[in-house]
Amino acid sequence: MEHFLLPKGFMASGIHSGVKKKRKDLALIFSLYPCNAAGMFTTNTMKAAPVIVCERKLAAQVPVRAVVVNSGNANCMTGQRGIKDAEAMATRTAELLDVPENSVLVSSTGIIGQFMPIRKILGGMKKLIKALSREGLGDAAEGISTTDGFNKIEVRKFKCGGKEVTISGIAKGAGMIQPNMATMLCYIVTDVDITRKALEGALRERVADSFNAITVDGDMSTNDSVIVMANGAAGNRSITGPGRALDVFTKNIGEVMLALAKMIVRDGEGATKMIETRVKGAVTKRDAKKAAEAIASSLLVRCAVLGGDPNWGRVASSIGASGVKVDPEKMVIRLDGVTFYKNGRFATRAKRRTSKVFKGRDVTIEVDLCAGSAEHVVYSCDISKKYITLNSYYTT
Amino acid sequence: MEHFLLPKGFMASGIHSGVKKKRKDLALIFSLYPCNAAGMFTTNTMKAAPVIVCERKLAAQVPVRAVVVNSGNANCMTGQRGIKDAEAMATRTAELLDVPENSVLVSSTGIIGQFMPIRKILGGMKKLIKALSREGLGDAAEGISTTDGFNKIEVRKFKCGGKEVTISGIAKGAGMIQPNMATMLCYIVTDVDITRKALEGALRERVADSFNAITVDGDMSTNDSVIVMANGAAGNRSITGPGRALDVFTKNIGEVMLALAKMIVRDGEGATKMIETRVKGAVTKRDAKKAAEAIASSLLVRCAVLGGDPNWGRVASSIGASGVKVDPEKMVIRLDGVTFYKNGRFATRAKRRTSKVFKGRDVTIEVDLCAGSAEHVVYSCDISKKYITLNSYYTT
Repeated sequence: MEHFLLPKGFMASGIHSGVKKKRKDLALIFSLYPCNAAGMFTTNTMKAAPVIVCERKLAAQVPVRAVVVNSGNANCMTGQRGIKDAEAMATRTAELLDVPENSVLVSSTGIIGQFMPIRKILGGMKKLIKALSREGLGDAAEGISTTDGFNKIEVRKFKCGGKEVTISGIAKGAGMIQPNMATMLCYIVTDVDITRKALEGALRERVADSFNAITVDGDMSTNDSVIVMANGAAGNRSITGPGRALDVFTKNIGEVMLALAKMIVRDGEGATKMIETRVKGAVTKRDAKKAAEAIASSLLVRCAVLGGDPNWGRVASSIGASGVKVDPEKMVIRLDGVTFYKNGRFATRAKRRTSKVFKGRDVTIEVDLCAGSAEHVVYSCDISKKYITLNSYYTT
Repeated sequence: MEHFLLPKGFMASGIHSGVKKKRKDLALIFSLYPCNAAGMFTTNTMKAAPVIVCERKLAAQVPVRAVVVNSGNANCMTGQRGIKDAEAMATRTAELLDVPENSVLVSSTGIIGQFMPIRKILGGMKKLIKALSREGLGDAAEGISTTDGFNKIEVRKFKCGGKEVTISGIAKGAGMIQPNMATMLCYIVTDVDITRKALEGALRERVADSFNAITVDGDMSTNDSVIVMANGAAGNRSITGPGRALDVFTKNIGEVMLALAKMIVRDGEGATKMIETRVKGAVTKRDAKKAAEAIASSLLVRCAVLGGDPNWGRVASSIGASGVKVDPEKMVIRLDGVTFYKNGRFATRAKRRTSKVFKGRDVTIEVDLCAGSAEHVVYSCDISKKYITLNSYYTT
């Protein structure tokens, strides 16, 4: 296991407790100092128990010291018993770390609708805490993963407020690789000194163009969570509001989030290509988003990309189906940089050049609505037979 | 070719004109008497040229005598030239039939973004009209199909207003079986005597629970059209408004539409099972519809059905992602009649009985939100590897 850099004052660990058969299934990130924290969670109305517990804890705005995560069971659709299990995980962690119960956040990912094997999880806690180390980020990334093809870790170092600051993030894929494994989780830790409010602002600003700009199969999970913790150990002048320091921090946390988001798409189940869909020239950002999301999640477009087929007609049809008002006479469609549709008709010349289009590992779809200046980018992946195989047989 | 019953005063034909390599690619339905007609068309903003032409003609409320359809080319994203081609098809048909130009409607289905091989189509018109016969409905059904697995025809005979009345309908599948073949077309003819307004009311009332209640891959085509023509040849007392006769007619036309809609779903590309998703107990019809559509179009649910996996967690997650407010403690989920989730927890007893669930050719998903009395049903199909294969390689 490679060692990944953690910001000052953070430790992490990941172990096997028995929820899953063999692989690591428990992860912990711990800060030696109290953190300002912020979180964003799924808007699925069937929120999992740990999401409900986290939202309540963060709303109380108390300092956060740790986040504990299990994989293998999502603790979702589990009613009051699920809430108790989530609270028990956090409480046990807090007791063993000797920190306030309210300062420990909790997440779960895995199968929906089964009660947590809570004894196994609580039984693994001592081992989990004993394993905490400055080099534990890789283990933690493994502990939160379900059937991810690779661990998703991103680290940025930069100067901010006169000091060197580090942001480290880990994530697990949204790819619903096995039945009910349906969650996007992300934990970002930093040693920057920043107020809770400024931290939350940076998170909200950047989530729109990173985690909210990816789609693997269009389904939003019951457990999706992004949590950010800042412990101030870098010793910079505290970031309290607008200014250059906040700009630099926001830019860097945005880059970490986008890098992790792209890793999730690339690891989409059965995916062979990443699709960057850019809609520009829209009247409103809302229109740009609607059109880009319609293209990016269209099954027919994703099949076309798989087959290396520059099928611009499907792109046009998706935009039309999205309900966004478009003048077909003005619209321009470019695939991998080649113009396929312009001036109200297909650009026949492009035909001769199609051989290279949609053949690489990264492909681009660009639509200019030529109606305004709003723009939106969405990242998705193609869909292959492997997706169907992975998702159609019961494997618990 | 079997002979299918046409209502009094109607003739039909289908021939090969050369748009497609071998199969029939032109269809015509003709009435000896002027018809009251109504139509409903795609809301995709990239409307195909024939859709624009039809909407204009129907808005003029002149009597309709015929509808002419080509398959193999959708005449979509073809600008002004496309409009001219669609008008030329109608005009040529009208000339040869010796009826007013405005009385001929027109449809196209096939590849998007290529100009029509209009000479081939116009060149086939004489043959098409010569082939008109009372037994031509099967040929017409073949002529409008692209890669449909079977012809979709439904006929109903019943008493209405003191006379025997016939309703005959043909449709082509929404299954996007080959690149850009993306259209649902339906033509219904009847010899009932009914006003245009009453006919349109019956069509609109019944389309919501038939053609608008099916989904194959979630994409709405640029050419979707449903056209109804009534020539009054049955000699019944004219249906002019609410009453028993209109009720009987509406019921029967609804049954024809639902039967055709179900055939389209069953013929979805690569489909092995038809899924009937019923959401009841919703506060509003809108909620019931939103939840049912979210379940029916979920890739993960459709994969689960393919694999015979009674994965109720994915059903629950889809409802949550739809944004409909639900109390998970009250909701009930039944798959093929077996209760899997109730009283805020999974119904463990069901486990032993899962072996039969989702194994048949027709499967049912029923969700009771236990919050009100609104209900909605959606028909969809599972998704298989064949869908991916069929849609990922360029085959023009």
